[in-house]
Amino acid sequence: MKIALAQLNYHIGNFSGNLQKMLTAVEEAKAQGAELVCFAELATTGYPPRDFLEFDDFVRMAEEAVEALAHAAQGIAIVVGSPSRNPAPEGKDLYNSAFFLEEGRVKAVQHKALLPTYDIFDEYRYFEPASRWQVVEYKGYRIALTICEDIWNIGNENPLYTRCPLDELMPQQPDLVLNISASPFDYTHAAERIRILKANVARYGLPIFYVNHVGAQTEIIFDGGSMVASPNGHIYDEMPYFQEGVRVYELEKVKQGSQQHEQPKDKIPLIHDALITGIRNYFHKLGFQDAIVGLSGGLDSAVTAVLAAEALGHKHVRTVLMPSQFSSEGSVTDARQLARNLGVQYDLLPIEPIYQQFLKTLEAQFWATPFNVAEENLQARIRGTLLMALSNKYGPILLNTTNKSEMAVGYGTLYGDLCGGLSIIGDVYKTEVYELAHYINERLGPLIPKAIIEKPPSAELRPHQRDTDRLPPYEQLDPILYQYIERQQGPAEIIAMGYDEQLVHRILRLVNINEFKRHQTAPVLRVSPKAFGMGRRMPIVAKYLS
Amino acid sequence: MKIALAQLNYHIGNFSGNLQKMLTAVEEAKAQGAELVCFAELATTGYPPRDFLEFDDFVRMAEEAVEALAHAAQGIAIVVGSPSRNPAPEGKDLYNSAFFLEEGRVKAVQHKALLPTYDIFDEYRYFEPASRWQVVEYKGYRIALTICEDIWNIGNENPLYTRCPLDELMPQQPDLVLNISASPFDYTHAAERIRILKANVARYGLPIFYVNHVGAQTEIIFDGGSMVASPNGHIYDEMPYFQEGVRVYELEKVKQGSQQHEQPKDKIPLIHDALITGIRNYFHKLGFQDAIVGLSGGLDSAVTAVLAAEALGHKHVRTVLMPSQFSSEGSVTDARQLARNLGVQYDLLPIEPIYQQFLKTLEAQFWATPFNVAEENLQARIRGTLLMALSNKYGPILLNTTNKSEMAVGYGTLYGDLCGGLSIIGDVYKTEVYELAHYINERLGPLIPKAIIEKPPSAELRPHQRDTDRLPPYEQLDPILYQYIERQQGPAEIIAMGYDEQLVHRILRLVNINEFKRHQTAPVLRVSPKAFGMGRRMPIVAKYLS
Repeated sequence: MKIALAQLNYHIGNFSGNLQKMLTAVEEAKAQGAELVCFAELATTGYPPRDFLEFDDFVRMAEEAVEALAHAAQGIAIVVGSPSRNPAPEGKDLYNSAFFLEEGRVKAVQHKALLPTYDIFDEYRYFEPASRWQVVEYKGYRIALTICEDIWNIGNENPLYTRCPLDELMPQQPDLVLNISASPFDYTHAAERIRILKANVARYGLPIFYVNHVGAQTEIIFDGGSMVASPNGHIYDEMPYFQEGVRVYELEKVKQGSQQHEQPKDKIPLIHDALITGIRNYFHKLGFQDAIVGLSGGLDSAVTAVLAAEALGHKHVRTVLMPSQFSSEGSVTDARQLARNLGVQYDLLPIEPIYQQFLKTLEAQFWATPFNVAEENLQARIRGTLLMALSNKYGPILLNTTNKSEMAVGYGTLYGDLCGGLSIIGDVYKTEVYELAHYINERLGPLIPKAIIEKPPSAELRPHQRDTDRLPPYEQLDPILYQYIERQQGPAEIIAMGYDEQLVHRILRLVNINEFKRHQTAPVLRVSPKAFGMGRRMPIVAKYLS
Repeated sequence: MKIALAQLNYHIGNFSGNLQKMLTAVEEAKAQGAELVCFAELATTGYPPRDFLEFDDFVRMAEEAVEALAHAAQGIAIVVGSPSRNPAPEGKDLYNSAFFLEEGRVKAVQHKALLPTYDIFDEYRYFEPASRWQVVEYKGYRIALTICEDIWNIGNENPLYTRCPLDELMPQQPDLVLNISASPFDYTHAAERIRILKANVARYGLPIFYVNHVGAQTEIIFDGGSMVASPNGHIYDEMPYFQEGVRVYELEKVKQGSQQHEQPKDKIPLIHDALITGIRNYFHKLGFQDAIVGLSGGLDSAVTAVLAAEALGHKHVRTVLMPSQFSSEGSVTDARQLARNLGVQYDLLPIEPIYQQFLKTLEAQFWATPFNVAEENLQARIRGTLLMALSNKYGPILLNTTNKSEMAVGYGTLYGDLCGGLSIIGDVYKTEVYELAHYINERLGPLIPKAIIEKPPSAELRPHQRDTDRLPPYEQLDPILYQYIERQQGPAEIIAMGYDEQLVHRILRLVNINEFKRHQTAPVLRVSPKAFGMGRRMPIVAKYLS
């Protein structure tokens, strides 16, 4: 039997668009001789549909898409993920289901049992877990149909769930496992997926076909990497990252395990490609073409601008240089050099006259007070307002240039440099931004001027300011942040690793008291296992470590 | 037996503060002769602790608080909610538990079975559900210990869960039911709670003691309203809304049902009191005293300022009037009159000079373009920047004045009038803001000038602008929004109610395409059954109804 995996870029709620993509893939799979074509989890709706699932109308549209696909299942069977209704009065109203479509009708429906409800996932908010399993017979094969997390509860010392669907399916003697997934990217995840597939093969001795989403939905990026694993424990094939595609596999060859193919999984190149996908999909799925970025002459805005130009094309990126009396000479010359290297439009808008006018308007209120954060933030907000004025006048979306280290400790001005529709590097620590910059220059030539990479980080909001005036050097800051954010270690554990006690307390406190800022910032393209935003949910009013 | 209900205002993560409050209440209960004192669900941590629960250190602190309370349980038993660890390797790491403390030790622990995971609730994100139930024997009585949602799965045609804890406890022949809750306010909820208590009494014929949180945690407001229900189906007593307190009840009298007391539940007064609690707790729990509000001369900012003055005291509210060349005369005179009526400080900062300076800086970029949303938003952002400059200089928190109708359709400027640390009336439709204004003037005298209430709503960002230029009148808009947001009806259902088809499609589209704005706004004090924010989770990049 020939099985096609269709790795597609869906769009949440775009039922006609998603259906059209799948119908095209059905034709392509048929043309390649496939007898079964597999689409991903919740492919009809896009993932995650979130509270749209609470609208009957939305679920109805998903049902209609499944009907249309069933109609197209002639001479080929189709597996597709879509919500289905729970007919019982008790429990949640929906299941997260895999539909097996054959000869114009729904042959079987298998619901998802293990509903991820952690990090960015909220599946138990919407779905009732499956409690029954039934293999699907097709062309003489018995197929164990599973959905994403269903195969993740093994090989783990601390499993999240009390059931294991494949354990329950094994008595029915399946010949192969099919897993339809919506498994988002982070820089550790592709390796993790391979580990879990191999653990399943080791336990059950069956070939596994695994199909994933590709493309981004706001902050969540799917890398694809759909896979086929052979019973001998080898990855028979891994489909490309960040690209759509349909590949057809001969089941008998997969069972023999004659072939083996895995892709490189280097962190920085993966992050780079994920960010490009994230930018491109955010713009194009919202119907936008153009971005605008403020260039400070610093590294964060430089890397953001390069990524935007790569994702959207240099003609679709507009940059703005907004020096003040506190800006270093390099802030203009370096930024201008970068804009020229990139071939992007740039405007020069000095902010001092506006700044002085604000101070004049506030003269009575600010009388005899020392220069403080008010004057600093004023500059950042003037810049944000200028960028938004151009955004409103000409339509480009403003990109936020804040990195994860700054986002963590609140080193940024709300409604100032924290403006923007999408945060590009808000899940990339400053030390990783340097790595990204080097990777960019290695690949594309010296796009980012050396001066930008080498100058000491500064917000340039007062004379001779340096980031290190208020923060420890990023080489010290980032590892502590990583332990607290990604690894969820508390102060005692982090101090026990050898970090300075006072520093640890100060940094953790900064992270906690700045939750109010992160609440109001743009969605952050997620590339790490723990990004700010929907995957990290913290109270604002709280006293813990603050 | 005498049972005390302690209705307290906890603070998330403030372990020592919460513990101290409870120890004081233990003494008070003892002084009143109580033999058992009951605190609310997750009282040690405050509710909801959200992802702090993923920190071992945080859970450890909760365990220490329970130990300290156990130590205090001498001559009185204590029931308190706190997380406990799941000793099994499978499943979530924690339970949401009720501890029964007696004679210095933990006598029994009952876990919560029904874990709300909808709207603002995420309990299955953290907790494993209970699967065993055991009554607690104390002073010759058998107590069925339940936690919040555990008693909510009855009397419902579409129950969310497949189990019912009290059904499972009944064979153990309990004498009374104790329910410790964290049941947030919305203007329908107090009546709903009474309905569910009565349904439980009708089904099981037992007295029920129900204790709730009071006070606010960022956007979530607890009204208290702890209750005792008699087996005859009457509410024996309902504790006050929005106030802390300890009340002691004689079980035998409750069983006789000799007394009956319920409080009024009028919508607008409840919303008013909830907002006061929300403002006060946000400020005081964060350690702030002062608020700043921009007064436009319109109704929303007027109501916001009055509520702030009621919550914080008029000396702690600073207002700013920022007219432009597009402002009506009333925008200054009416706002000034309001400020005087309230006795709050006001500054007059005309924005035209700054506006002109922005246009001069942008002269080349805006050359020969027509006046559009860019110039409009510029004015709103100058105002936001001025308010934030005063906030940064003197420390008051800026209050956001956007109402729910505007928030829904995106009628507001990001980084402009959408600035602010807390949204006061973002869950109050414009038509309800009028009701609030009337209620305020009825209670406090004509604080809000008649002119402010009667003028047609306008953003005054261009000559002769009216809200109705772009939006239907609020009397038409709000009911459609209510059906879509609170009642989750789709377009077909809303049109079938008799609303204009084109209008419905236009409004639902406006709601959906403005998700990006709501993503970046302040937390919204929640007073309705469906507020923007953590209770309504929508994708930004999506195509549904847009």
